[in-house]
Amino acid sequence: MTDMPQADAGPDRTPRPDTGRRRVVIVGGGFAGLACARELAGADVQVVLIDRRNHHLFQPLLYQVSTAALSPADIAVAIRRVLHKAGNVDVVLAEVTGVDRADARVRLKDGGHIPYDQLVLATGSVYHYFAHPEWRDHAPAPKSIAEARRIRARLLGAFERAESCPDPAERRALMTVVVVGGGPTGVEMAGTVAELARYTLRGDFRRIDPAEARILLVEAGPRLLAAFPPDLGDYARGRLKRMGVEVRLDQPVEAIDDGGVTLAGERIDAATVVWGAGIRAAPGADWVGGTADRTGRLPVTANLSLPGDPAIFALGDLALFEQDGKPLPALAQVAQQQGRHLGRALRRSDAPPPYRYRTRGDTAVIGRHAAVYTYGRFKLTGRLAWLLWSIAHVYLLIGFQRRTLVMLQWVWRYLTFERGARLID
Amino acid sequence: MTDMPQADAGPDRTPRPDTGRRRVVIVGGGFAGLACARELAGADVQVVLIDRRNHHLFQPLLYQVSTAALSPADIAVAIRRVLHKAGNVDVVLAEVTGVDRADARVRLKDGGHIPYDQLVLATGSVYHYFAHPEWRDHAPAPKSIAEARRIRARLLGAFERAESCPDPAERRALMTVVVVGGGPTGVEMAGTVAELARYTLRGDFRRIDPAEARILLVEAGPRLLAAFPPDLGDYARGRLKRMGVEVRLDQPVEAIDDGGVTLAGERIDAATVVWGAGIRAAPGADWVGGTADRTGRLPVTANLSLPGDPAIFALGDLALFEQDGKPLPALAQVAQQQGRHLGRALRRSDAPPPYRYRTRGDTAVIGRHAAVYTYGRFKLTGRLAWLLWSIAHVYLLIGFQRRTLVMLQWVWRYLTFERGARLID
Repeated sequence: MTDMPQADAGPDRTPRPDTGRRRVVIVGGGFAGLACARELAGADVQVVLIDRRNHHLFQPLLYQVSTAALSPADIAVAIRRVLHKAGNVDVVLAEVTGVDRADARVRLKDGGHIPYDQLVLATGSVYHYFAHPEWRDHAPAPKSIAEARRIRARLLGAFERAESCPDPAERRALMTVVVVGGGPTGVEMAGTVAELARYTLRGDFRRIDPAEARILLVEAGPRLLAAFPPDLGDYARGRLKRMGVEVRLDQPVEAIDDGGVTLAGERIDAATVVWGAGIRAAPGADWVGGTADRTGRLPVTANLSLPGDPAIFALGDLALFEQDGKPLPALAQVAQQQGRHLGRALRRSDAPPPYRYRTRGDTAVIGRHAAVYTYGRFKLTGRLAWLLWSIAHVYLLIGFQRRTLVMLQWVWRYLTFERGARLID
Repeated sequence: MTDMPQADAGPDRTPRPDTGRRRVVIVGGGFAGLACARELAGADVQVVLIDRRNHHLFQPLLYQVSTAALSPADIAVAIRRVLHKAGNVDVVLAEVTGVDRADARVRLKDGGHIPYDQLVLATGSVYHYFAHPEWRDHAPAPKSIAEARRIRARLLGAFERAESCPDPAERRALMTVVVVGGGPTGVEMAGTVAELARYTLRGDFRRIDPAEARILLVEAGPRLLAAFPPDLGDYARGRLKRMGVEVRLDQPVEAIDDGGVTLAGERIDAATVVWGAGIRAAPGADWVGGTADRTGRLPVTANLSLPGDPAIFALGDLALFEQDGKPLPALAQVAQQQGRHLGRALRRSDAPPPYRYRTRGDTAVIGRHAAVYTYGRFKLTGRLAWLLWSIAHVYLLIGFQRRTLVMLQWVWRYLTFERGARLID
């Protein structure tokens, strides 16, 4: 089926290398990769899904882990579990380091390799600190469970330290939270930090009043939620203001260090800085030697394959897919749709048909009862948008247990402002 | 109220140092310390509760975190939250490094100190590796959240590695779990690991069958559950055997290393070794210069104070309290009762009355439908004992949300053998 392994490629790590069936290798168990694998379940194809982690993570809710509302396990599910009935799918816990296109195989970090007939790259994205990689240490981003835990520990730890801090200026800095980036992640994060401080922690301290925490949302551009219609960004800004969040527009971050940030020449001392400003595709482009755009995305053809290599596909945040002259945004629903489309197509052996994104609308949440939703020209804000946001996110969650438990915690939190995951690790 | 701070004792870190009321300082927010603080809520006493962690941990269920059944947040609650209505109680997140008895103050790691009128030491216990502290790296024990996560990652990671391991002997070692210690912790751990392998993971792998995992429970003494009547130990052994656990009695562990254990001259290769063999009191005895017993416990008088120092008390796992000629065991219910007793007494300014432990019976769980329960001469095994165990543990859990969610997960797991927290960090 494929070349013999060469000495420098290490041993063949394919689980069940001898099925004799067409082999589809999927790299990444996020929304795109998992949807693709699920569609291929039961097909006359051997599927190998490779991921560095054993779990699929519901990233759109990671900010809730960062703010102690949900536990990591509430938004994660073992990839094996999701695919356990798919007898033709093998899940491999391994890190991919490259792709040998000439020999049609994927290289693994442990020195082995896995040959493919068709390769699906769905490696997602990471937060990007532009020209300042050193900011990462000072301003973690809610992208992995470990980072979300780090944010949670910083946030809760700062209030603890403020409680026993005799110096007023230092206490002020400990009670200052700066969220960088006015997109959906930043808006959600700022809103939920405000709720944490104003309601959840209220009454738990004796010397400080958490409600006096200073929360800043900083955006380099002229408005919040730039991907949404302007009035929705204005609505978000107004709601955040009412919740006590200072929104700073047109203020690019100039410096971030251990003690705070500098914005437009103004120094702001802050113990907690959270990053939600920019993403960059994970290093799938380097593996295939493709020409990536400036955020690392691989341009793909209409059927999601690489130009000139119909056996390799790129999906989700990694893919630069143009539709009506514009690239599709990095959204879970885009990734999931592309995964499904490609999975259905790969069941057959002929080339996949062209893909077209059909939006179900875009939504971002600001806080209790406050969200925005847009679908074409239709726009919605407030309570009903919040309900839509909740339903959409619960629907997207995989696995019945997850859905029920998360739903119960939301309802509980809604009624009480209580947070169940106030752990400083 | 107390001496002026001396230069070498650092600043006074008492929150609200000027209340003028009698000050009770409690070190440790476990079962004993928290129960004591709760009883003191609303009293005409200033209470300062110091803990290294921001959360109270329900340690008896940590083994369920280790085996992916529960999330850390399910069995932890912010200490501040529990005490938020107790306006006379301050919670301080800090590490105690010593006690100056002459000056009646507690020293903190950050260089400060907190003066007390009465001091309650409730620092609990840690796992003890006898003469082999180096075993800790190879055989973590379920005592903190971080260690429980480590066990979980090892256990799940070993099955992952086994799935892609071509060598039969290595695969066998990866699928071998050794639990050291035949007390309640060891029995619970071995039973739940067996259920994880035989039921939860079944069908999730393609090349290995997790049900073929080898699970050993190793005890140096002649029987399991030595603190229980002998026939209950025999029952536990029989149940574990039926669940596929190899029980080794009279086999002290001779060596533990990266690759496995040596028992009575026999080498057993195992990727996962879990320690549940012995505990030792946390270093409260060193602080007060008391004469501790060989497991670090501080002998206390009938009213839980130190002999010769009526202003200092020791509770729970730290205290060596003799009743009817025998020391009380290191149990959550002992700690909680002592905390309550002392808390009630300290509301008044006179010396506390003598304490007497009133057992509500002892229980240990082996697995689904299988537990033991003993109360005086009354003994119970099987389904009803399991129900009692469940009720007792849910009852002990603090906070309404905790109880409901944990209960729901138990019910869910009971019906499906599903595990919700299969995260490898």
